[in-house]
Order: sequence, then C-alpha cells, then structure tokens
Amino acid sequence: MNTHGRNFRVTTFGESHGPAVGAVIDGCPPRLSLSEAEIQPMLDRRRPGKSPLESPRYELDRVELLSGVFEGQTTGTPIALMVRNEGMQSKDYEQLRTVYRPGHADRAYEEKYGIRDHRGGGRSSGRETLARVAAGAVAVKVLAGYGVHIAGEILSVHGVTGEEKIREEILRAKAAGDSVGGIIGITAIGCPKGLGDPIFGRLDAGIAAAMMGIGAVKGVEIGEGFNAATLCGSENNDQIDENSCYRSNHAGGILGGISTGEPITVRIAVKPTPSISKVQQTIDRAGKPVEIQIQGRHDPSIVPRAVVVAEAMLALVLVDALLEQQKYLVR
Amino acid sequence: MNTHGRNFRVTTFGESHGPAVGAVIDGCPPRLSLSEAEIQPMLDRRRPGKSPLESPRYELDRVELLSGVFEGQTTGTPIALMVRNEGMQSKDYEQLRTVYRPGHADRAYEEKYGIRDHRGGGRSSGRETLARVAAGAVAVKVLAGYGVHIAGEILSVHGVTGEEKIREEILRAKAAGDSVGGIIGITAIGCPKGLGDPIFGRLDAGIAAAMMGIGAVKGVEIGEGFNAATLCGSENNDQIDENSCYRSNHAGGILGGISTGEPITVRIAVKPTPSISKVQQTIDRAGKPVEIQIQGRHDPSIVPRAVVVAEAMLALVLVDALLEQQKYLVR
Amino acid sequence: MNTHGRNFRVTTFGESHGPAVGAVIDGCPPRLSLSEAEIQPMLDRRRPGKSPLESPRYELDRVELLSGVFEGQTTGTPIALMVRNEGMQSKDYEQLRTVYRPGHADRAYEEKYGIRDHRGGGRSSGRETLARVAAGAVAVKVLAGYGVHIAGEILSVHGVTGEEKIREEILRAKAAGDSVGGIIGITAIGCPKGLGDPIFGRLDAGIAAAMMGIGAVKGVEIGEGFNAATLCGSENNDQIDENSCYRSNHAGGILGGISTGEPITVRIAVKPTPSISKVQQTIDRAGKPVEIQIQGRHDPSIVPRAVVVAEAMLALVLVDALLEQQKYLVR
Amino acid sequence: MNTHGRNFRVTTFGESHGPAVGAVIDGCPPRLSLSEAEIQPMLDRRRPGKSPLESPRYELDRVELLSGVFEGQTTGTPIALMVRNEGMQSKDYEQLRTVYRPGHADRAYEEKYGIRDHRGGGRSSGRETLARVAAGAVAVKVLAGYGVHIAGEILSVHGVTGEEKIREEILRAKAAGDSVGGIIGITAIGCPKGLGDPIFGRLDAGIAAAMMGIGAVKGVEIGEGFNAATLCGSENNDQIDENSCYRSNHAGGILGGISTGEPITVRIAVKPTPSISKVQQTIDRAGKPVEIQIQGRHDPSIVPRAVVVAEAMLALVLVDALLEQQKYLVR
Repeated sequence: MNTHGRNFRVTTFGESHGPAVGAVIDGCPPRLSLSEAEIQPMLDRRRPGKSPLESPRYELDRVELLSGVFEGQTTGTPIALMVRNEGMQSKDYEQLRTVYRPGHADRAYEEKYGIRDHRGGGRSSGRETLARVAAGAVAVKVLAGYGVHIAGEILSVHGVTGEEKIREEILRAKAAGDSVGGIIGITAIGCPKGLGDPIFGRLDAGIAAAMMGIGAVKGVEIGEGFNAATLCGSENNDQIDENSCYRSNHAGGILGGISTGEPITVRIAVKPTPSISKVQQTIDRAGKPVEIQIQGRHDPSIVPRAVVVAEAMLALVLVDALLEQQKYLVR
Repeated sequence: MNTHGRNFRVTTFGESHGPAVGAVIDGCPPRLSLSEAEIQPMLDRRRPGKSPLESPRYELDRVELLSGVFEGQTTGTPIALMVRNEGMQSKDYEQLRTVYRPGHADRAYEEKYGIRDHRGGGRSSGRETLARVAAGAVAVKVLAGYGVHIAGEILSVHGVTGEEKIREEILRAKAAGDSVGGIIGITAIGCPKGLGDPIFGRLDAGIAAAMMGIGAVKGVEIGEGFNAATLCGSENNDQIDENSCYRSNHAGGILGGISTGEPITVRIAVKPTPSISKVQQTIDRAGKPVEIQIQGRHDPSIVPRAVVVAEAMLALVLVDALLEQQKYLVR
Repeated sequence: MNTHGRNFRVTTFGESHGPAVGAVIDGCPPRLSLSEAEIQPMLDRRRPGKSPLESPRYELDRVELLSGVFEGQTTGTPIALMVRNEGMQSKDYEQLRTVYRPGHADRAYEEKYGIRDHRGGGRSSGRETLARVAAGAVAVKVLAGYGVHIAGEILSVHGVTGEEKIREEILRAKAAGDSVGGIIGITAIGCPKGLGDPIFGRLDAGIAAAMMGIGAVKGVEIGEGFNAATLCGSENNDQIDENSCYRSNHAGGILGGISTGEPITVRIAVKPTPSISKVQQTIDRAGKPVEIQIQGRHDPSIVPRAVVVAEAMLALVLVDALLEQQKYLVR
Repeated sequence: MNTHGRNFRVTTFGESHGPAVGAVIDGCPPRLSLSEAEIQPMLDRRRPGKSPLESPRYELDRVELLSGVFEGQTTGTPIALMVRNEGMQSKDYEQLRTVYRPGHADRAYEEKYGIRDHRGGGRSSGRETLARVAAGAVAVKVLAGYGVHIAGEILSVHGVTGEEKIREEILRAKAAGDSVGGIIGITAIGCPKGLGDPIFGRLDAGIAAAMMGIGAVKGVEIGEGFNAATLCGSENNDQIDENSCYRSNHAGGILGGISTGEPITVRIAVKPTPSISKVQQTIDRAGKPVEIQIQGRHDPSIVPRAVVVAEAMLALVLVDALLEQQKYLVR
C-alpha cells in the first residue's frame, strides 16, 4: 500500500538502487504556482553528506516534474515527481544478498514477498523517504496558502539535549562503530479549526499513522503524550478564558480528533540506525548462522535527517485534512 | 469518516442518547460460526457499573445481529450489529446544550459541524466505543482461527503500579471530584509473519492510528517505544540466533512495518477523564465565560474500561492485515 | 464490497429473510433537515403489491432512523437507516435450499462463498435495493438543496411503448407464467458544471457502475449511447451557440467525464425477471439435474419497480460528485 | 481521481504535451517475471501512424520501467512505468489556447479547474490511454498466469460490418473531413468463477465503469445487453444441463455481479472522434462566437486504436477482482 491520503493522494515508488524514486500527487488543487525550484530545498535538507554527522554518500537528488504543471501552475491533474538514482555502489551490497541485517526489514520483506532487492535496502531503504519529502514540499506550499506552517527540531539524542552535546554524542557513536536514537518535536501553527473526521479519520490518528510509518519511529505523542497518564483531569484539561482562548494546550491542538486552532504539537521517538559496524549475530537465507559487520556509508544517527521527513509527513496529513474539510465547511 | 479497514471494513454509527449504536462489518470471511452470545462477553467487559471504579450508569448493552449470519454461520455478506440505547437520562445534560466542557470535544464538534448533539457527548461519547468493541469481538473470533490472541492490561494509573494501589488511586481521585490517566499495554501473540504493507499500509502505522483514534489516547509506543531513543544500535537491534530465533524483541514484533512473528507489543497513554466535578472555567456558545462543575455518573478513570477497547482496535487492525496478506501469500 | 461512494459513503446490509435491511450514510453534510417521513415516500414507490403488475407480497417497509439526526437536523455523523423484515414466508423457499434457480445468483453465491442464505435470494434479493432507495432518498434531499432534480420513466417493455400497451404486455407475461424486460430512462436536471473527476472518477463511469450494479441491468447508455456509433462527428458534436449554449445534447450532459450543466440523460436495459413458473432445467447443489417451476409471489416485470432504484442510484452518484467537487471549486 | 482498482491499484499521470506520461502499479503480486519488452507490444498496438486509418503522428512510445522489478522479477513493490513524450508539435495547438473544441473536454476542464493545458487536449488527450495500456499489459501478464485471456475486435463502424467495408467507411469519413464511431466487442475467456463482490463491487459494475471511463465510450453492454429488454425470462435465463454446464450465455458470464466461469462478453459504443476539419460553431474563453476547423493529425475513427485500450481496461478490472477474491477463497 503505497498511497497516502484520501484527498491529497500521494503514491510513492522506487528502490534505493533502481532507476529512480518518485511520487505521484493526485488531488492537488489547481492554479497553485509550482516549480522544481520550490521543491528542491526540502530535498536538499534531507540529502546526506552535508556534515560529519551524516552518511558521506553523495546524492545529487535533483527533482524532475513530469506532469501536472502548465506554465508554472498546477492544473488539478496528477503531479509526477521523479529523482533519478545516481552514484549507487550496488556491489557494496553483494554480501547482503543472502544475509539478513539485524534491525532491518531484510528478513521481513523476504518472508513476506519471497523476493527482495537487497541492494541498499531496496524499497525499505531510507532513500524512499525522498519521495515523501518531495510530495511533502508541495503540501507545505499548499499549507502556506492557508497560513499553516510546520517546523521540526531535534529534542534529544541518546538522552542528551543541546546542539553541541548532541553533536558530540553522534560523533562518539560513529567512532565506536555504533549508532544512537533520539526524539524529534514537530509543531504546526496556524492550523484552522475543524480539521479531522471522527471516528476513524481523526486528525490525531492520521498523524500517529504518518509518524509511526516513518521507518525508524517507535513512538508518537501528541500534546502531553505519555505525561498525560500521570496527570489529574484538573491539571490536564485546557480551560477556556473570557476571551474564548484556551488557557493551556495539553491537548496539543486536537480534541475529539478535531483541530482546535491551537498549535499542533507532536513528538516522535527515533530508534538508533540499525546499520552498525560492530559484530552482530544473524542468519542467512538458508538459516545458517552468520556474524555480520556492516561496512559502508551509514548515518550514525538518523535523527538529524529524519526531521524534514517528519515535517513532510505532517504536511501531507494536514493538507489532506484541509481538503477533506472543504466538503463540510459551514457555509 | 466512520469506516475502519480496507478488507475487514467496520463502519460504526450512533450517538450516546440516540436510538442505537452499532456497526456494519463488511468483508468478514464466510462460514465462520458466529452468534450474539459470542459477541456479548467483550461488550460486558466494556460495560460500566461493574465496580466502584467505574461510572454507576446502568447499561444493559445487549447486542443484536441484524444480518450476515445464516443458521449460525457468516455468509460473507455484511454483518450488522446493533445495541439499543436504554436508560439514558438526557435531561441531565440539558445544562450542557450551550456550554463547552473543558477537555471534551464539545466546542470542536460545534465549530466543525455548526451543530452538535450535546446529550452525553453525542457521537464523541465513550459510548461509541461499544460499536468498536462489538466489531472487535468478531475480529477476535476470526483471529482465534489463525491462532492469534490479544490481551491487554493496565500498566499504571497516575504513575502508580499494582492492582491495589491503582484501585486506591482511582478512588482517591473520585473522592476529590477529579480524575486520573494511566498506561495500558496490549500484546498480540501468534501473529503470522508478513502482515503489513509498506509504505503506507505498515502494520505499526495502522496500530498507531487505531490506538491514537481511541478518544482519550495521547501517546502510542511499539516495542521499546520512547526508550529506543536512549539506546545504541548495538543494544536495540534484535540479533538472530542459530535457531533462526530473534534473541530479543525490542522491535515489538514489527520490522519495516511488517510483522516478524514475534509478539506485537503496544503501549498507550490514556489521559484523565475530562469530566470532573471540580470547578472549571469555560465559555458558552455565545462566548460568555461560565464556571462549570460537571455532575453526573462519570468514570474517575477511563483506563480500566479502555483496556477492552484497545484490544478490540488491535484485533481490527490485525484481521484487516491478515485478509490483505491473503492476496500476496507466497503460494 | 457493500459501500458506495467516496464522500457520501453508503454502506448497505441485510438479507431478504434476515431480521432487517438497512444502510449507513457516512459523509452527509450537517444541518440538513431530515426525518423518517421524508424518506418514506421513495420507499413506498419501490414497495410491491401496489398493482397487479407487481408481486402481491405485502411489505410495510417502515424506515427507522437510528442515528445522525438531532432535533430534526443532520449532525454530520453517520445516519443509520433500518427497515425490519416482516411478513416473510421463509418456508416457501425451503425447496430452493439446494436448487439453483436459472438466471439467479444462487449458484454464483454458493460457488463464491461456499454458503448462501437461500431464503428469497438472501443478499442477492431485490429486497436489498430497499436500502439503496432509503439512502437515495437522503441523497435526493441533498441534491434538491443544490437545485438538482432526477426523474425516471419506463421507455419500453418487451419492445412495446406507451403506458397501456406496456401494462398489457406485463399482464400477458404474467398470465403465461413468464416475465419481460424493458428499458428505463433517467434524467437529472439542474446539475452544476464541473462534477466528475478524470481519469478514474469520471462522472459517466460512476453512473455506469451504479446502473450496471442494479441487479437486473445489462446495459447502460449516456446521451446518444449506442446510437453514437452510427453517427459522424459532425452530427454528434454538440456545437456551442453565440449565447454560450450547447445547440444539442448528444453528449448527455457529460464531456471528458465532467458535467457540462446540460441535462444528464441515461438509459438502462433491464432483463426479464428470472423467476418464472415455466419449467426450466437446472441442477442442485450435488450436481443432479432438476426440473424447476418457481412458484411464489414474483414480479412479472421488474421494470416498474426498478425506476425508483435507478433514480436513487443516480442521486447517490451525483451527491458524491457534488461533495467531491467542493474541494476543487474555483474560489 | 487517477487511481483504478482496490488491489491492483493503477495511478496514471501525464499530459499529451508535458514531459512524460506513465503509471504506477501498486499491488502487483511478487515474483512475476516482467520486462519492458513484454509491455511494449500492447503499446505498439495502440500507437498511431501504422495505417492510413489512423493519425499520421509519429510516436515512438518506448516504455521505461522505473521501479518494482529486480533481476527480471516483480518484488511486490510499486512498478512505475514511464513513456517520454516526443515529437510533439505544441505550436499547432496555439490557436486552441482560448477556443473550446466541440465534442472535446476543453470547456469542461476549464470550467472545473479554472485552468487547462490546451496543448493536444492535455490530460484529456487520448494519449493518456497509453498509461492505461502499459499498466494493462502487466495485468494481461498476471491474468495469463491464471489462464485468463482477453481479446477485442471491431464489430461495426458507422453501422457497417466487415473489415473491408469498415476500412472504406473510415477512409470516406477522412476524405470528407469528418469522423465516424463504431462498436467494439471484448471477450475474456478462462475467467475463474466467483470474481466480483456484491453489492457495490460487482464485476459487471466494475466493467461498466472501466469501459464508460474510456474517453469516447457512450454505451456498455454485458451479455445480451439492450437486447435483454426485448426478451422473455424463459428466453433469457441460462438453464443448466445435466453436466452442470450452462446451456447458453445470455448473462455474459456474470450473475448477481459474480463471474460464472462462462466467457465474459462486453460491447461498447465508441462515438465519432470529435476532432473534424468541417466548420463548427463554438465560443472562446471570453464567450465570443468562433468558427473552428480543426486541422492536424487526427484519427478519422478512434475505433481501431480503442480496441487495445478496452482490452487493457478489462484486464485491469479482472486482475483487481482476482486479487480481491484471494481473500475469500473457499479453502
């Protein structure tokens, strides 16, 4: 199932070492100005090789618009976006043809499909997120027209906070041939009231799915999140003052699955990158035990690069809900 | 959007104080033995009034099968399940016609739809979960046929653990006219490998949506959850031993969005019930400030009754994925 | 698959001789005035026993609103509609438990599901259309608010036209223990421009599916239909005059899958009722040859009662497209 | 809405004069051998310029596989197919920037979206069918593995039958600067019993939508089609003989929306190509009356090239139903 959304429908395709990765956006409103140059910056934020914290892989990742835009404007027809894969070193992965890397989806894919493209993780590669980010960039553009803005940030890595300490923590993991996880916060401001469709199209449910659907994410919180479990109702309820404003935002901008107009606040837990060069026990396709040391150009922490992916996914959820809401607007 | 699932499609209907609540299940496999008596026990677990920890409301909640079963067996046609609402005291809610209760969806619904049924929360009432549990009971039956079993438990309430302490904590909140949240754990065992459809039909994403879609839930974790953010890759990866078994289950039974065959472990954070009898500040429909004290027969903690709802939702996700997987089975 | 539509989603349930048939409408706009009394007239038009042209079965078919309406107005939540089955004579059908009636879906259902409710055709009974008509009545109400009106009529039966001749033709078939088919025309006027979503959500495609999805329908035409195959482009094109009006409507109100604002004209071919009392060859479940004479209270022609079903289905398609179109309206 | 199918989901993109047209297939079973060379022949059948009956446009239409295939086999991940647009003469269409061609979707698109790509019809161009045929070629391959085969043929053009007469009729229309319509028959043999999901996923409804969704189609028949309206039940019912075989196939292989195992027989009416060089009355975007003579390289009849498109669409419907049916197979 490679389509996200009911209204702003994004279908992604592509493997890490195949010819291309891309997305088709179906349902983008017409007459939105759009160009490749407006999509590229979010892809550049996602690109590896920008600092010692990231994989040194060199990926140019130039997006090409194949359809849906005419004389600089969207037409309401599907927008196809494609990035050619280049600079792949597929033979680096030959040793992984028959071996299952711990913490990766290798074995799961092979058991499910009876076949897998082992090169760079194939479809389960983080490279697939490139297509989500490209589509997300279009969603961000749509949202801007409604005054909605999204920003993500690293809250902690391996339990430490603060930019300098986080940097040190990641480099320490890298030096040790290991990796570290962390927590990302994403906030959307300017979101109109009324987004989200109870019971099974709740906005918080959509956000949870979008976030947990990012490869390395193992937890999602909205508003107070797990902390709400330790509060009393009198502490957690957001009372309303005499100016009709909420006095607090423990709810994280969503009540009953519907946006309240307050900032939407989300936190996600990102696991440590499973690719590490320390020795690990695993098996090969035949069930034979194997010791594996994963060499190659991996991220010691996926957290920094995952921020823009989380922003993109939140944008996709919100623009989808915005379009859904057009149908029911109290006119 | 009141339908859950792509294969085992459950559409729920009904308001707290309307004539009935119910569900239509479309896509249930044929020739499954099924009766009202098999559905009732899960509804009984959800029913209030069974202990001082719960609302003293008396709800009989007898389920009626309206279609889809012939001579004790499902036929592959839609299964409609209905529970009549009885014993409602709608006039208790008259004061809430124009006032928005803090922490509830009252204001969000009215801003979205321009109208709301204020009696008992209407569609946003916890009573709606009755329909999910009824459908979930059918899903549990289907899963049993595949050897899949689900069990939930209270892990903590207001930060305390242990059955007796939890009981005390809830009664203390009740006595104070307040409420408390908590954490629930749900586990599925016996789940086949290969469930879940990357990229946007991932099993973990589906679970996250289903759980966050329960009214009071503010956080979802799978496997290590937020703790994974504090681990190294060498700690978090589940290595595979010489018998092809995973040595650990930090992943919570899901890798790359696909089930691994290990137990699926989920934790959810439940916020404190927003209905409390302490004085709260809010406004009415006209924007006028109002002090509110919510009287009535409320649960001092929704946690005990939410366990069966969480089980039902996990069952719905798993049976939907199981049916999806039929299409791709390596034959 | 028992749900119709993407926006005005109608899920039907129920068998001919089960406890009830009904529908859940999800996505109906809020604040529409609605009552059982407004739905009943379309059901009454569909009801048998009103003239000698129809089955003499007595069905009261009183609709009950179970949810989604509060103080006479829709709330935006699911609208559940139910009609209890009454006056069934299930034992009439005992002989059909193991025998497949020619022209009916008996064998197809049993081969697909491995089980079937043989009483009155079960789910494949024409009685299921009752649920579609109930939902259609709500759709008609929504459409009226947009100035859209739908009307159907019998164009011919067994090749003859004119009300009196058609009546005679049906009574002749009845007397002969046989049945006859016919053609129905359905027109929608007042339909806004711009409905329909190319490529796979085209309005004409949606209409074709809705019509062919009525039990006895074997052909669908829009505008010129099959006659277009005999025309030149210069005859079939609808030219536009100096007042921006189409000079003709060969297109039947739809170009490129999008409504033009002209009347939408549809014709459908209805096959003769398969239930006849003439002797027919068939087999039973075990494959044994059987001679069958179907006794009972059948319609000698389904055409008269199918008119309102076709209207209901067209209404469902149009209201679904109308809601979809809200999202893309040039504002 | 540019996605077809629930299981074998095909999303198409691309305009006539944009960079490319293509399709993404999501849900293709894994481990099917597949290459560009297997897809190309159906595209070649659709390509213009092969005879004087067709547009003399030269389109190479080489398909490129962008994803989903690894070492010659499908992997279960999305299959992206792309054909670059080449040899377009966009300036030919400059005069159509503001003028609406009669019988085309020009005005409908502009009224719906407020913008349109006028070059060659943009998204409403027959060129879009290239993407459907590419996806259809993959569907045909899947079906072959189940023993299902599809063949289409021209039954008549402008009322005449027989290959030589049809050829003459088309050339006569061409010489007159006009165009002609016709009727196509499509048959699927070897189709398993049990495909199709009542009530709204009926196989005949799906076929009707797929056929009516082809640009120029105005009518669809299954089995006896409109002729059924002139028959008695005793003539139209397919009786079953002592070998459990149907004695006839008036139903066209579908009863109750479910395949019977008999050949599925479909007929469609194709309207005359709206592009003609005869003088026609129309208006421009400003509402000013205009006389138009459409020059360029058009098909005098779309019927010959539409055969393969109809085959492709039937293949998409059948493979989608086949995969759906996997879930319910009586095991």
